[in-house]
Amino acid sequence: MRQILVIGSGKSTSYLLKYLCDHAFLENLFITVADLHTENAQSLINNNTRAQAVKLDIFDAISRFDLIKKADIVISMLPAHLHIEIAKDCLKANKHMVTASYVSPEMQALDLDVRAKNLVFLNEIGVDPGLDHMSAMQILDRLRENGSEIFAFESYAGGLIAPESDNNPWRYKFTWNPRNVVLAGQYGTAKYLKEGSYKYIHYNQLFKRVQPLNIKPYGEFEVYANRDSLQYKDLYKLDQIKTLLRGTIRRKGFCEAWHVFVTLGMTDNSYTMTGSEFLSHRDFLNAFLPYHPNKSVESKLKDVLLIDNHHHIWEKLDCLDLFSNSCYCGITNATPAQMLEKILTNSWSLEKTDKDMLVMYHKIGYKNNNKKHELHSHLIVTGEDSTYTAMAKTVGLPIAIATCAILNKKITSAGVQIPTAKSIYTPILKELQDFKIIFNENEKFY
Amino acid sequence: MRQILVIGSGKSTSYLLKYLCDHAFLENLFITVADLHTENAQSLINNNTRAQAVKLDIFDAISRFDLIKKADIVISMLPAHLHIEIAKDCLKANKHMVTASYVSPEMQALDLDVRAKNLVFLNEIGVDPGLDHMSAMQILDRLRENGSEIFAFESYAGGLIAPESDNNPWRYKFTWNPRNVVLAGQYGTAKYLKEGSYKYIHYNQLFKRVQPLNIKPYGEFEVYANRDSLQYKDLYKLDQIKTLLRGTIRRKGFCEAWHVFVTLGMTDNSYTMTGSEFLSHRDFLNAFLPYHPNKSVESKLKDVLLIDNHHHIWEKLDCLDLFSNSCYCGITNATPAQMLEKILTNSWSLEKTDKDMLVMYHKIGYKNNNKKHELHSHLIVTGEDSTYTAMAKTVGLPIAIATCAILNKKITSAGVQIPTAKSIYTPILKELQDFKIIFNENEKFY
Repeated sequence: MRQILVIGSGKSTSYLLKYLCDHAFLENLFITVADLHTENAQSLINNNTRAQAVKLDIFDAISRFDLIKKADIVISMLPAHLHIEIAKDCLKANKHMVTASYVSPEMQALDLDVRAKNLVFLNEIGVDPGLDHMSAMQILDRLRENGSEIFAFESYAGGLIAPESDNNPWRYKFTWNPRNVVLAGQYGTAKYLKEGSYKYIHYNQLFKRVQPLNIKPYGEFEVYANRDSLQYKDLYKLDQIKTLLRGTIRRKGFCEAWHVFVTLGMTDNSYTMTGSEFLSHRDFLNAFLPYHPNKSVESKLKDVLLIDNHHHIWEKLDCLDLFSNSCYCGITNATPAQMLEKILTNSWSLEKTDKDMLVMYHKIGYKNNNKKHELHSHLIVTGEDSTYTAMAKTVGLPIAIATCAILNKKITSAGVQIPTAKSIYTPILKELQDFKIIFNENEKFY
Repeated sequence: MRQILVIGSGKSTSYLLKYLCDHAFLENLFITVADLHTENAQSLINNNTRAQAVKLDIFDAISRFDLIKKADIVISMLPAHLHIEIAKDCLKANKHMVTASYVSPEMQALDLDVRAKNLVFLNEIGVDPGLDHMSAMQILDRLRENGSEIFAFESYAGGLIAPESDNNPWRYKFTWNPRNVVLAGQYGTAKYLKEGSYKYIHYNQLFKRVQPLNIKPYGEFEVYANRDSLQYKDLYKLDQIKTLLRGTIRRKGFCEAWHVFVTLGMTDNSYTMTGSEFLSHRDFLNAFLPYHPNKSVESKLKDVLLIDNHHHIWEKLDCLDLFSNSCYCGITNATPAQMLEKILTNSWSLEKTDKDMLVMYHKIGYKNNNKKHELHSHLIVTGEDSTYTAMAKTVGLPIAIATCAILNKKITSAGVQIPTAKSIYTPILKELQDFKIIFNENEKFY
């Protein structure tokens, strides 16, 4: 039996483990899931005789290496900053490795050694990064093979909530790490290229400078710019590109309301608030508003935002109990971002039967025979419930399929890899169609 | 003769060197001014036989230590981060030291060793920090000695331009390091206390949340909050304080216009702009505005700021040639902050005969015999020209007077010191009156 070691069994492993267990007999696999807490893993592998959950403290280097030694391939589902120790162990023990995270400089530095040992360290093989790379490169390669010249590339993705579970005014729930949602956009000005001009959007303005996006029949969305779109010029070989923008998708109206948190400083993670454990939600909000001897928090907020009672922002803030004097976060030495995360988690957690929705959208401008074309390609994936989410599906299935492809020597390119090469994305995208992960394309002609 | 070594001879040393040269005979001093470039020092000591300018590369540790060994006291006028090496040399060579900068953690760490050698390392003895500490503590100590209880303390300062040289729409020119002005407010959320509540102002909002300040007959000013007012609770022993705020003074309207730079991200110093050397002022501005196929930069800016042609911001931006297609910064790999600094320096540099104006303001609420009082104290100092500035005067004279006081054993408290003790501020504030540095007090009764 081929031994697969999965380290970490958090939210996004449900479909990954289901795929591996379902294919265990046919593919002759044995799956070991290692985590500090094994309950979730136990529940997901559901007494499958070809799988086991084992307890592992990933900081226990000896036990960790013992497990890695026994595997043929290692999937790290840990938080991104923890991959590197696993990677070093895999290199030492001559094991292939798969992660869904961006290649860190430390990971990239292993490339020569990984190549020398003819190992595959495949990263960025989840949804974003992952499915975005693969689906975009498949279109771009096809167009280029047809002699087209790409002049515009826009690519957007978002983890949202399906229409049947879309029951709060933000039209959003957490399907991913809430902390990352609260801190989104804070690590560097967004940079992109538009009609040949470099454009910069400061965090101050990020959620104000949104673009509308309509996907029929799913309705109205909006997009805010991701951190650095410019690096995709080299990554996707877009040498002649005039417009290059990557962004995150939200439902229409979300960003204008989120901009309130940014403006007031409620997403700041750089200092702790004095007496944070004693602050009600209302006190928390008031701490960012000017003092006034007799104006209410509501009245001061209206003055700052220049909005009235009927503005959609109002309902969005109110539904979070942000004006409540009796709701407390109760966290000591909390940063504003930690307080906000707590408040949002109360309102935005998935109910057991909630279905999420993953949306991805590419828009590509190209010239062929001196004619301009615009190609639109989108993907909508809906989850089953709060365990088998669209997020877990689109993260986990590419990982699972890639892992088997490496074991089966369908993916053989040695080194620290990302799935932009045709030899990698072709078999994975093909098999994903069996799981209804299918992009819908249409063209506009000019 | 007592040997004084002044290291650094930048903008703020004119009055310092004048005072020391003027007092050289009476106080039996010999002044050595060390700098990499000696022209400014030569010009300021003006052939005084009791003073010399010597060339020193402050990174040349041997030459530096040789000079320090020969001195009785050392004044460091270097940028703040360079004091520590001088301080270590002074400790080694058993020399007193004076600086106008905030005590860094590294400087504070020398305290025990400095005490053990009975040396005085007096810091924060310029204008802000310096004159602010001394003038505030003199009032606070006096009130407390009268049995008063202090419940509110607000303290503001600003380096501005005197009415006779006040000839641009911003009513501002650089009298201090332009870089610090551009980056002001970026290093941490402003924290203060107002009527018992902790308040936080994010950089996003800092220049929008200003307080008006009227100083008769000097007219209308405004104040934005400094980084961390809360630390003054311990520093000034304000145990019962309910309102505690420190701020920076600008002329009315300055901050609303500066907020435009903050909002657009033009003060960002965290990344370099692609092709910065080829960007005209107009291109620079446009890089922070959304793309539009046919709207002008002016039109897009109006859309973003929601202002019309008659708004005062417009004139302020226009006078900086910010809309010019023919003005270039011409700096390669420039950050937005560096580009902005260049643009502002073109417009805001002092002319030779320009007079600057230093403004300081304290507002203190206290209770005495169960009656509430409000004491206002302000200082206005006007410069003579672009060399003998109010800034150089209010920075340099406290340093010079303190230096002589240490030599004359009028200031003897050993250790790393700041001038909050009565024994330090009393002789300095007294002598500053001879130079017309006199605070004007008035009280409001309730």
